[in-house]
Amino acid sequence: MLQSRTFTKTRKEPPADEVSKNARLLIQGGFIDKLQAGVYTYLPLGFKVLKNIENIIREEMFKIGGQEIFMPSLHPKENWEKTGRWETMDDLYKVKDNSGRENALGPTHEEVVVPLAKQFVSSYRDLPVAVFQIQNKFRMELRAKSGILRGREFLMKDLYSFHATEEDLKRYYEVMKKAYKAVFKRVGLGERTYLTFASGGSFSKYSHEFQTVTPAGEDTIFLCEKCDVGVNKEIFGEQKTCPECGGNKFKEETSIEVGNIFELKTKFSAPFHLTFKNKEGKDELILMGCYGIGLGRIMGALVEVHADDRGIVWPPSVAPFLVHILSLGNNKSVSSVAQKLHKTLLKENIRVLYDDRDVSPGEKFAASDLMGIPYRIVISEKTIKAKKLEFKERKSGKISMIVEKKLLNILRKLM
Amino acid sequence: MLQSRTFTKTRKEPPADEVSKNARLLIQGGFIDKLQAGVYTYLPLGFKVLKNIENIIREEMFKIGGQEIFMPSLHPKENWEKTGRWETMDDLYKVKDNSGRENALGPTHEEVVVPLAKQFVSSYRDLPVAVFQIQNKFRMELRAKSGILRGREFLMKDLYSFHATEEDLKRYYEVMKKAYKAVFKRVGLGERTYLTFASGGSFSKYSHEFQTVTPAGEDTIFLCEKCDVGVNKEIFGEQKTCPECGGNKFKEETSIEVGNIFELKTKFSAPFHLTFKNKEGKDELILMGCYGIGLGRIMGALVEVHADDRGIVWPPSVAPFLVHILSLGNNKSVSSVAQKLHKTLLKENIRVLYDDRDVSPGEKFAASDLMGIPYRIVISEKTIKAKKLEFKERKSGKISMIVEKKLLNILRKLM
Repeated sequence: MLQSRTFTKTRKEPPADEVSKNARLLIQGGFIDKLQAGVYTYLPLGFKVLKNIENIIREEMFKIGGQEIFMPSLHPKENWEKTGRWETMDDLYKVKDNSGRENALGPTHEEVVVPLAKQFVSSYRDLPVAVFQIQNKFRMELRAKSGILRGREFLMKDLYSFHATEEDLKRYYEVMKKAYKAVFKRVGLGERTYLTFASGGSFSKYSHEFQTVTPAGEDTIFLCEKCDVGVNKEIFGEQKTCPECGGNKFKEETSIEVGNIFELKTKFSAPFHLTFKNKEGKDELILMGCYGIGLGRIMGALVEVHADDRGIVWPPSVAPFLVHILSLGNNKSVSSVAQKLHKTLLKENIRVLYDDRDVSPGEKFAASDLMGIPYRIVISEKTIKAKKLEFKERKSGKISMIVEKKLLNILRKLM
Repeated sequence: MLQSRTFTKTRKEPPADEVSKNARLLIQGGFIDKLQAGVYTYLPLGFKVLKNIENIIREEMFKIGGQEIFMPSLHPKENWEKTGRWETMDDLYKVKDNSGRENALGPTHEEVVVPLAKQFVSSYRDLPVAVFQIQNKFRMELRAKSGILRGREFLMKDLYSFHATEEDLKRYYEVMKKAYKAVFKRVGLGERTYLTFASGGSFSKYSHEFQTVTPAGEDTIFLCEKCDVGVNKEIFGEQKTCPECGGNKFKEETSIEVGNIFELKTKFSAPFHLTFKNKEGKDELILMGCYGIGLGRIMGALVEVHADDRGIVWPPSVAPFLVHILSLGNNKSVSSVAQKLHKTLLKENIRVLYDDRDVSPGEKFAASDLMGIPYRIVISEKTIKAKKLEFKERKSGKISMIVEKKLLNILRKLM
């Protein structure tokens, strides 16, 4: 892609009205735009990151048997009255149409997926089954100030699983833990993300969160020094020892909740009478689990965790482009070499951005560091003379001179 | 995919509360579910069709330089007041938060994309540029009765283009006409879809719609017998001759509007003062075009146009699966041959559904016809004896006995 033809531009300064690092850098780099507090547009570069995250999540959900669906945002009031949440959920957006009919704007989808499952699941033979979606959620956050970490409108993956027995629910819950670990590892948050015990509500002893440790976090967790599992602040008071290993030494950390998994058991199947016939032909309530990941949260957490003084640092797996070509100066042979390399990489299906703009080298370097594309190639009269390319890894800042063949080898391995 | 593990089931009868053919068949076949009037869930099979349509649209938009973004649904009231549409648009959903702040639920995105473009487009050098999204829209349809043809909540592709001159807008408008024709051809609506002249509002003489001729349509168009271009009923009264070729013989048809393209010119750039500096350094208003396609509309129109007495008939390009394997009876060698073929096709990345359920042949045949997968393979004791596969094309109903190698050749060509 040619940078001169990109819809967005990087800004010299971060926006004055944002306090969070993720929003400041993502807006400055042209990845997102703020429409209003807690409501953001994903611009071409940001949308590419979002899609890369989405595809990783989708692949991992497919691997564990998730079937993809797409549920609506306009939920009838009656469904939310049935679970009692029409009155009790403070951050529920409510919208009335001209006929006076009321709807909730879905902040989660138990009220839709449970009556849906009722149509298709009736026997133990239909179980277990799991459906998921990647879809917009709405929550009335009155003080949204954490950029894309906590929005009024945000993309989530939510998966719902249905089981005949508690044992089977527990089995799948463990399968999901592994799938979530795989997601966080693949997007580049693995090293900082911890399985964390949280309150299970009235139905289960515990639920679990996945917490990414970073100073920007709004949450506090206590990490067990023995087994590396976290305990949420919410339940840490009651908890003298680690629920995982029994250890009693903890380290306090601030963190971002990037995912959560919950044994709902019969909490939502009961109000909707979601039952199945067991092998003896008797009706039993179906047991459920629900499992969420915020896509914007992951993107925001990646910025918070990996950015440095000069800007964003994307892991290759989610980066909008793998490589950023910069041509310096107005020399024709420089731009012809750069164009040729751009073409070669496109032909190899390597995600590449070519900064072909007529601006100073300093401006190009600064924009490239800000945008955080993992590898940078500089082409100048000097590199042409040396018959090499200047190669820089954004993360380490390490610069070396390499030949095109070596570049292709490095990039092919990352595809 | 194994049919026994699919979340949904086909129903024996269509739903009693639906009048439109598309909703009756899509619900009966397990493609969609109605949450409430005009609000549908896309189930695993329906979601696959939707994704196939989405990918075709995306590819064609990329080909003509569209850059993909993702705008939110919660729009500040002020933006809609600026264009006057807060008061004049009857079907606008309005939602208030606890602080009293009001939002529109976006039915279209001029009120968001124009202020967005203002941040990045300032010079003639930034033009032309085009951005698009595939995103949920909300419209308060009080009598939604056409299934997924006209919903309260629906997925749309909307592209917005920005130009320095009227000539350039007209040039791109013609490029878009061709892209839309390519989309409708690829999804399987090409033969029945006509470019149709419609009202241009106060800013342009004409806009254009793409109308798919079918008895289920809510629109009426007049097709010029000479040049095959349509004229919308809305403007047909004033129009004595075909605006394209001057012809004066027309045929009246009912049709579904599956897309529309519109020269907005300065209609929305004016209220937001979206200007650019021309080559002389003077400020001029940017000229805009907008171009919409409804994804659910395409899916619904495909059902209306191609379905027959036995069910849906999907074109291969958008079908949830290319081929449907049916094994008949409980004979072990039958299921082992079927399993092997299923595996072979999966290995070739061919989209395949295998009906491994323990139900009667009649039930399998009926479900297969209803679901409309383009090719059906029957494996039975008879076919094993003949050392062939029974191959049926859903569209023509033609049945033949073929060997596996021929099947693979047929399917590979369709990938």
